[in-house]
Amino acid sequence: MEILTRYLPILDWGCRYRADQLGDDLLAAVIVTIMLIPQSLAYALLAGLPAEVGLYASILPLVAYGLFGTSRALAVGPVAVVSLMTAAAIGNLGPLDMETKIVAAMALALISGVMLTLMGVIKLGFLANFLSHPVISGFITASGLIIAASQLKHILGVDASGHNLLEVLIALGQHMGDANFLTMIIGITATGFLFWNRKKLSPFLRSLGMGAKLADVFTKAGPVAAVAATTFAVYALNLHEQGVAIVGHVPQGIPALQLVTPPWDLMIELILPAFLISVVGFVESVSVAQTLAAKKREQIKPDQELIALGASNIFSSVGGGYPVTGGFARSVVNFDAGAATPAAGMFTAIGIALATLFLTPLLYFLPKATLAATIIVAVLSLVDFKSLGRAWRYSKSDFLAQAGTITLTLLVGVEAGIIAGVAIGIVLVLYRMSAPHAAVVGLVPGTQHYRNILRHHVITSPHVWSLRIDENLVFANARRLEELVLGAVAENKNITEVVLMCPAVSFVDFSALEALEELNQRLEDAGVRLHLSEVKGPVMDRLQRSEFLQELTGEIFLSHHEAMLALDPERFGKEA
Amino acid sequence: MEILTRYLPILDWGCRYRADQLGDDLLAAVIVTIMLIPQSLAYALLAGLPAEVGLYASILPLVAYGLFGTSRALAVGPVAVVSLMTAAAIGNLGPLDMETKIVAAMALALISGVMLTLMGVIKLGFLANFLSHPVISGFITASGLIIAASQLKHILGVDASGHNLLEVLIALGQHMGDANFLTMIIGITATGFLFWNRKKLSPFLRSLGMGAKLADVFTKAGPVAAVAATTFAVYALNLHEQGVAIVGHVPQGIPALQLVTPPWDLMIELILPAFLISVVGFVESVSVAQTLAAKKREQIKPDQELIALGASNIFSSVGGGYPVTGGFARSVVNFDAGAATPAAGMFTAIGIALATLFLTPLLYFLPKATLAATIIVAVLSLVDFKSLGRAWRYSKSDFLAQAGTITLTLLVGVEAGIIAGVAIGIVLVLYRMSAPHAAVVGLVPGTQHYRNILRHHVITSPHVWSLRIDENLVFANARRLEELVLGAVAENKNITEVVLMCPAVSFVDFSALEALEELNQRLEDAGVRLHLSEVKGPVMDRLQRSEFLQELTGEIFLSHHEAMLALDPERFGKEA
Repeated sequence: MEILTRYLPILDWGCRYRADQLGDDLLAAVIVTIMLIPQSLAYALLAGLPAEVGLYASILPLVAYGLFGTSRALAVGPVAVVSLMTAAAIGNLGPLDMETKIVAAMALALISGVMLTLMGVIKLGFLANFLSHPVISGFITASGLIIAASQLKHILGVDASGHNLLEVLIALGQHMGDANFLTMIIGITATGFLFWNRKKLSPFLRSLGMGAKLADVFTKAGPVAAVAATTFAVYALNLHEQGVAIVGHVPQGIPALQLVTPPWDLMIELILPAFLISVVGFVESVSVAQTLAAKKREQIKPDQELIALGASNIFSSVGGGYPVTGGFARSVVNFDAGAATPAAGMFTAIGIALATLFLTPLLYFLPKATLAATIIVAVLSLVDFKSLGRAWRYSKSDFLAQAGTITLTLLVGVEAGIIAGVAIGIVLVLYRMSAPHAAVVGLVPGTQHYRNILRHHVITSPHVWSLRIDENLVFANARRLEELVLGAVAENKNITEVVLMCPAVSFVDFSALEALEELNQRLEDAGVRLHLSEVKGPVMDRLQRSEFLQELTGEIFLSHHEAMLALDPERFGKEA
Repeated sequence: MEILTRYLPILDWGCRYRADQLGDDLLAAVIVTIMLIPQSLAYALLAGLPAEVGLYASILPLVAYGLFGTSRALAVGPVAVVSLMTAAAIGNLGPLDMETKIVAAMALALISGVMLTLMGVIKLGFLANFLSHPVISGFITASGLIIAASQLKHILGVDASGHNLLEVLIALGQHMGDANFLTMIIGITATGFLFWNRKKLSPFLRSLGMGAKLADVFTKAGPVAAVAATTFAVYALNLHEQGVAIVGHVPQGIPALQLVTPPWDLMIELILPAFLISVVGFVESVSVAQTLAAKKREQIKPDQELIALGASNIFSSVGGGYPVTGGFARSVVNFDAGAATPAAGMFTAIGIALATLFLTPLLYFLPKATLAATIIVAVLSLVDFKSLGRAWRYSKSDFLAQAGTITLTLLVGVEAGIIAGVAIGIVLVLYRMSAPHAAVVGLVPGTQHYRNILRHHVITSPHVWSLRIDENLVFANARRLEELVLGAVAENKNITEVVLMCPAVSFVDFSALEALEELNQRLEDAGVRLHLSEVKGPVMDRLQRSEFLQELTGEIFLSHHEAMLALDPERFGKEA
């Protein structure tokens, strides 16, 4: 593939664009635009930013993803978890006025965008492996709970916030008395309606004989209906004069493009949160894109996705927005609506831009309680405690990683939660790696096969000790291998020969090489020779680049049986 | 083994103690005591503490190790690298008066001691695997260089210090003009003598007909001779009145036992350095203990060693000392001198205690330049650039880890260096793990064996795609496996069956399970069935604890050939 096409997939699909695809893309764009408007406003409020920032974050990023992305259906923009992480990152900077908060959010998107792009260019996509499934799923569950709790203040019409579930709930408890009755009616009704809309509307419409596809469109329009109805109610009944909080004045028009240049120390403070947002956003987004691509037997390219998400975030910052990533719900809607190419996203961007230009006055009377209801219904579907039960049944250590992530996210906050999850995951991997899979082996009588002495009835030699190593030797398990061998030699003073059987070793790193050299030296000090058998070709090639083979006190045998014949001919000569 | 004996190895060797061992232990103790006195003073100065703190750190820790340790020869006490790390940790607290510095050093030993003990009790010794061979060796090399450079100020008689090589060298350059001529003469002579002593004295004495053992004793006494000679020179010639810096008044007697209770925020700041000191100290110490134990075919127990080192540090703190660990040189001396049991260490403690009680007045005129010379000669033997060359030849990525650790330690400081080394090591492991070893396989004609299609001439099916997985499936490689399979299916639209051949998979973690479930789902969406073959018993047992086997669209085959016979009978039925 040519370099330009590789980095700009639009050149690939763009020149093969057909008229029938245009129709599909336009229809998908209209549906997604309708869905995105209330979501964008709501998530911006969740991030602690003015509602219009959510709209700005839903225009240019979509264009950028259209240019650079490899998924046909992925729809980028503000999403719940990243908005929560943005709120936490900005909150950690201390009390700020709104103008500074916006600058910080733009800076966060810019730094995150540059990081993602760099990671894509130097192919660091594998870093996403730091986030294991249990950790990311635990993190999303906990984030969903925090987000839902944090939105209760809008439903109750009180002022209460915090960085973790505990703080949020305590603040809510303290302000319970200030609850506004009208706001509660709007909030609870909207939440109830949206839950009913999500679970029951589509089956109900189909029971009336409506087609499944059309019923689905009605369901997707539910949030817009809730927005329209409650906005009209506030306007008609002047509810905002009775304490119902509304979105209020949303500036009409699109802000001038600009590159934020926040002070250096602010940038430094944002590096860690930006990195966490980048990795979480990338993992989320790639997972959505892969799910949708597989349905059409298409492929996405993770490293190019990093570049696309990076560009989306840089564009978001330049356009006055905040960190974005690929969202699950909107991408599925885009896919189901028949989006044929990434052009659908670009048309959606035009739709949002038009809405920002012309529809914002209509949002004046939109009650915040309705937006909170939208968020609550959306995020509660992210909460998944079943996974915890499945992890418990499958593996206690994976359960630990997931439960640890959930607990720390809920009790301390999102950044602590995700870092703890990553740390637990890495510690678990190293722990598992630290005990090398290995078995002491002996000869199965009548054959030339060597098997685990614990599982088979086998012949062993009194002075030759054979250990089969069942995995690669790397720094994490090299030290334990040494302990294993030295322990056996210390316990059995008859041993004069140790043979390591290496049929499953396809890699020996430098630490393991040094451990083998040390082992050889220490065994020599103890009067024991060290041999190897069945060493694979590539491993042998690499060992030849060191002095190990010269220093080795024993020999290298092609087969383990040859080794036993040479080292204990009396016993093994007659058996074979 | 009974619980008491397990945690108190002294009960094991203590009740079998024999008179001939007493003689051996006493001799070893005398030799180690003579060696330890100048070292203890010198390392305390290196840590930025008064000289006597080094003596205090060489009394109680030796008793603690004697009670809890499993190595017969290990000698604990102040060592170069840990002293440098202590200096860095205290330096990071900002400018402090000497009294506060001592409290901080005692707190560091206490926190580190508690951490080590806890790690031993809950068996976290595997955490030491975080420090790979290339990283620890790079770290020690860089530390050796920094220490040597930092001691030049004492040799020159100027005031210059810094946290990394750059800072130290710049400070030295700036103060070059203040150099004291007499100090330089003492320093350079002592350094020259000690180098000659280390390299040439023993061969020279042996060429005169002296026995190797006795020649070795003379060599070990070299530093004491240098101390005695230069101290006498200063005293006799009143050199301290001409600007030669001396140790000065060292309090006579042993401080009362006490438990430091520093302010809470100081404790918090010391947690990270204490952890780093604990891990580096443990890795160093265990490596020395293992080397010596192997020579006598004895065994050490790493988790018990953690407890012993923990107790040593707690005792050090209580006795007015600073962080300690097992030292290489002194342990070798102890071993060579014939130490028969850990009682040798206890006798050494008595020796140092007596010296602290009665000999400190003799140290008044000891020039600091002599101590600096002792340190320089000791640490330059730690510097090992050859390892870098070997790593380069063996594996570029291990070279990167080592070079990165050296560079960051030299240019930024010890804490940054060790953290960067650990991080590079973990990233490399995850990177290596992220590309699963796997091969597309086909049937070797005339056999029932399936081999890599890239290496063998084999028969494949147009619609069945077989992938042999050559390692355990864990979170780090699960995602890549998905990409691999989905990529193959996206590129070849004929594929309707995917068979994963799992003879080498002995572990599937929860992330990998979820990845397999997702893969199954996505392949189903693409109209492809997923099968497994040759799944090991333990893996099967574990998979049965999940819903994966019910959801699996395909089947589980005992052998891969059975799978091919079932899925493409036309082609494979006639071949076998």
